[in-house]
Amino acid sequence: MKNEKAVVLLSGGIDSSTTLAIARAEGCDISAITFDYGQRHKFELNAAKLIAGSLNVTDHIIVDINLRQFGSSALTAPIKVPKQRSDREIGTGIPITYVPARNTIFLSYALALAEVRQARKIFIGANAIDFSGYPDCRPEFIKAFEKMANFGTKAGVEGGGIIIEAPLINHSKAEIIKRGADLGLDLSLTFSCYDPVVDGIACGECDSCLIRKKGFDQAAIVDPTKYAVKVKV
Amino acid sequence: MKNEKAVVLLSGGIDSSTTLAIARAEGCDISAITFDYGQRHKFELNAAKLIAGSLNVTDHIIVDINLRQFGSSALTAPIKVPKQRSDREIGTGIPITYVPARNTIFLSYALALAEVRQARKIFIGANAIDFSGYPDCRPEFIKAFEKMANFGTKAGVEGGGIIIEAPLINHSKAEIIKRGADLGLDLSLTFSCYDPVVDGIACGECDSCLIRKKGFDQAAIVDPTKYAVKVKV
Repeated sequence: MKNEKAVVLLSGGIDSSTTLAIARAEGCDISAITFDYGQRHKFELNAAKLIAGSLNVTDHIIVDINLRQFGSSALTAPIKVPKQRSDREIGTGIPITYVPARNTIFLSYALALAEVRQARKIFIGANAIDFSGYPDCRPEFIKAFEKMANFGTKAGVEGGGIIIEAPLINHSKAEIIKRGADLGLDLSLTFSCYDPVVDGIACGECDSCLIRKKGFDQAAIVDPTKYAVKVKV
Repeated sequence: MKNEKAVVLLSGGIDSSTTLAIARAEGCDISAITFDYGQRHKFELNAAKLIAGSLNVTDHIIVDINLRQFGSSALTAPIKVPKQRSDREIGTGIPITYVPARNTIFLSYALALAEVRQARKIFIGANAIDFSGYPDCRPEFIKAFEKMANFGTKAGVEGGGIIIEAPLINHSKAEIIKRGADLGLDLSLTFSCYDPVVDGIACGECDSCLIRKKGFDQAAIVDPTKYAVKVKV
């Protein structure tokens, strides 16, 4: 039987890397897609390449999309990344690190690639539990995108339809880390920090570092990340 | 009263240019967005600039999105553009000039820009009547995109919501041309051809030329386009 084709969004973080490992474990024939979206740190692009390679994904496209042109996010514009926020602060409101319409844009490209590769499934590592602040990580967004995709594409209208898979959407960070480890994902290749001090050295203080460290602690797995500041969780 | 902010998708064709003229007539404070998506003819980017200028739109962003990387359309890859098709042929199926997920990608960027500019409205010149072959030009797609946009953005969740306006969706090409002319749009600046012989000279034989010419005839307005081949409609 021919393997099912799938497009997987891969950023180089834990969620997308575990999602890639899941798609791989399901036996999918994978096209991975990573975005160079003007993020301030290119290091994560390298992480994505290493992870794709470690999972034997040879069809890996890096798309250059210039969101810097639009500004307005701490991840793409010169705005300070918030540090040492409490769990309560992290869980409240939409953070400054929100990039306008990011997952909508990412999924749109993935959709185009899925049509070209004749893949029915698109995997995204969106997660609504440990980082509920982003509106485009919620299940209702994923469902609405899928519906729109099926109205707006040849694959949806004439083909077998498009399915957006977000296998981690209701999982805690600890569960995701365990799942990744169980699937043999090399977690040391993943990178989460929003504001690394230098390539490969995480700040240890941004929301993403705090959530990552806490997840590893709860999963009782050693966090292989090098942090500049010792994370207190 | 402050004018309402709006983002308008502008390609340089008749539909998007008339849509821009409509948004302008409604008194919107406009940000126009045009895509350099690897289309084989850059001339239409110039048309878009001239049209924006003619309607006094000063905030005009040209976004470089490399769809060529994905291939698979006669508009972006080296596939022959079909010529001299009959009305019946034009009205049947999804044409080879369909670009995978194009309007989804375009609207996603427009959505990001709308968030950054704090615009509630996004105008798109999608039209389901004279070119029903594209799935992403249908009203159900536009509605589904709007719904998704309101789930997936800060503007949708915390702000006043996003509205996708497709004022021409149910208009014939002749009606659109009349509307544009009534609003004072300089139709000679618009360009429709999929396969121009040289810059500014339309082929006269592709679906887009045939639909354009017929529209002008039915509107009883002289078509200012220079065609390489005399169009028979």
